[in-house]
Amino acid sequence: MAQNFESVEKALAEKLEGVQLDEVTRILYGRKYPSLSIPDSATQLASTGNFQLSAYTISASPEQTRAPRLVRVAAIQNSIVLPTTAPINAQRDAIHQRIGEMIEAAAQAGANVIGLQEAWTMPFAFCTRERLPWTEFAESALNGPTTAFLSKLARKHDIVIISPILERDEEKDDVIWNTAVVISHTGHVIGRSRKNHIPRVGDFNESSYYMESTLGHPVFETKYGRIAINICYGRHHPQNWMMYGLNGAEIIFNPSATVGALSEPLWGIEARNAAIANHVFTVAINRVGTEVFPNEFTSGNGLPAHKDFGHFYGSSYIAAPDGSRTPALSRVQEGVLIAELDLNLCRQTKDAWGFRMTNRLDLYAKSFTQAADPEYRPDIRREK
Amino acid sequence: MAQNFESVEKALAEKLEGVQLDEVTRILYGRKYPSLSIPDSATQLASTGNFQLSAYTISASPEQTRAPRLVRVAAIQNSIVLPTTAPINAQRDAIHQRIGEMIEAAAQAGANVIGLQEAWTMPFAFCTRERLPWTEFAESALNGPTTAFLSKLARKHDIVIISPILERDEEKDDVIWNTAVVISHTGHVIGRSRKNHIPRVGDFNESSYYMESTLGHPVFETKYGRIAINICYGRHHPQNWMMYGLNGAEIIFNPSATVGALSEPLWGIEARNAAIANHVFTVAINRVGTEVFPNEFTSGNGLPAHKDFGHFYGSSYIAAPDGSRTPALSRVQEGVLIAELDLNLCRQTKDAWGFRMTNRLDLYAKSFTQAADPEYRPDIRREK
Repeated sequence: MAQNFESVEKALAEKLEGVQLDEVTRILYGRKYPSLSIPDSATQLASTGNFQLSAYTISASPEQTRAPRLVRVAAIQNSIVLPTTAPINAQRDAIHQRIGEMIEAAAQAGANVIGLQEAWTMPFAFCTRERLPWTEFAESALNGPTTAFLSKLARKHDIVIISPILERDEEKDDVIWNTAVVISHTGHVIGRSRKNHIPRVGDFNESSYYMESTLGHPVFETKYGRIAINICYGRHHPQNWMMYGLNGAEIIFNPSATVGALSEPLWGIEARNAAIANHVFTVAINRVGTEVFPNEFTSGNGLPAHKDFGHFYGSSYIAAPDGSRTPALSRVQEGVLIAELDLNLCRQTKDAWGFRMTNRLDLYAKSFTQAADPEYRPDIRREK
Repeated sequence: MAQNFESVEKALAEKLEGVQLDEVTRILYGRKYPSLSIPDSATQLASTGNFQLSAYTISASPEQTRAPRLVRVAAIQNSIVLPTTAPINAQRDAIHQRIGEMIEAAAQAGANVIGLQEAWTMPFAFCTRERLPWTEFAESALNGPTTAFLSKLARKHDIVIISPILERDEEKDDVIWNTAVVISHTGHVIGRSRKNHIPRVGDFNESSYYMESTLGHPVFETKYGRIAINICYGRHHPQNWMMYGLNGAEIIFNPSATVGALSEPLWGIEARNAAIANHVFTVAINRVGTEVFPNEFTSGNGLPAHKDFGHFYGSSYIAAPDGSRTPALSRVQEGVLIAELDLNLCRQTKDAWGFRMTNRLDLYAKSFTQAADPEYRPDIRREK
């Protein structure tokens, strides 16, 4: 793995041309999106701040009885700012400031809904299996410093923000959750969604910090459309995406933290498959960079103890219901990815492909019920 | 769309090199598979017969208590041989002969299980919405000429063959089904699987010829492993793949017939996502070429009546549980794709990623049951 390799799309654009480039791009990415024109002020902020800023238009067909439902969605991928040895409050405040700059650029570019990465206020410290100081990053979804910080920005810019944090449920049992807070354009919290599937793989030792969500699959009606959040490892479970779809989501965010050696060839597949299968837009966001911790830890793979989690490869992207997708953000640099979506494409694709109509949900309700029974015997046929 | 563009992988190999080629390949295809050495006699048959022959090795880690479970799987993509105006029996016999040659090559290359494309004995004539003569291609799964033809080959070569045909259920109501017949290495029929999801999209007017399967999700225990068949449009439904997985499948075939303008950017995503999500191997097989019919038909897209279905783009491939995949067969040429799989990789990946453990099947059994109720109201939260 070459850690400084920037992106597949850049390599293709550099080396292919003409029909070859067109065909490779069409087959791998679907239709080509026009760039979205954004103000110089936004570009300037990105340049000064040294983060990538890309913007595309994902259109739908015109309809007679519905106007286009245009929404500008932004995905932000970031690195931690201070070393993990800095005081917790200082680490969080520095990331707040950094994200504040990136949100400012996104807002200048006209973003309506901004999605941040999983546990965006902190290093992804679960690999250490240590509690203090990392659990001190956990905070109240309603009254914590991060929600307070973003509420101001949401109100100021008239934007919806999806803020995935480590939540301390101060009102109930003081337990920790992996939670996405949905902040309205008014600055109020509309609600929260929690991680439905907790990994038991690699260094993702999250299952000893928090449990699977008991909130189900809520969808949030916002000023800019119906939004759901499938946090990280939930993207490996198609039935999880499906329930958000069945609850009416038009855009499903997938805030993530995942590393190259483990999942990179899967990254372009799963959220995109979910967009196709559920006639929704999906926004896959991954952190970027390498995080080094003070104490060494082992990875259950026979290799020596070490202090880093591996390279978080960024590569955030947005996929559309028709199976097309944007190029990815960089594998190595922070960035803001913006797409102007016409949400009418959801229903248009629903009518064209019809998966919601042909899904035989009653059959699978019964089959899953049977298969969930510990006494279930798989339907295996043998030669008589 | 450039109809003569051969394959993405060939374009990449031609124009990229060094780290760029390595990284693009790793990110897009996962780990690189070694080529599988096959006898000259097989290569010679492919050369004489003018079809592609590619072969790879998909290994697993060695285990102490289980020997490797090596199976050579072959996917065959073919074109029709005679014009669609030829007599039905002549059309079918010509395809039989052609496939006989391709199976011979696969057998010489050591194939144990061979998968054919959807409705492989006939042109994909449902676009015409005509009944005769096309429904005359339908035949008994147990006693029809195609099963008789393949049974001999299965016994001769000690191979299992997945034979997706248009079935006439002569024993029951004389109705037509879209069926995959599973032929044992003994030459006997182990059983059949039928298409669970019937398309209502584009020129796939199949829903007026046959209905959705009532056979559920059978898995077939063969000499070479546990096999299931998800026919064509069923690949768009993740819950369909999932039930085959829950019933114990290790290899799921996806015999298909699909055309470029509609689905090509989706093709590399769906069967591969299913391999990942279900810890199984998937074998995606698509026919190749353009089929022209005697009478014109319309496509419900405002364009003039025409006589062809568009280009079937081949591109058959095999995906592994770890998310890696083979290069695709050609977009324009018939071919045989062989991979030697170590089926131990299924359980190894199951243990590593654990999706079968973390799938919360009981939650989704309940959620799907509720969502399947016409009175179900989606869980939508609004700002108070």
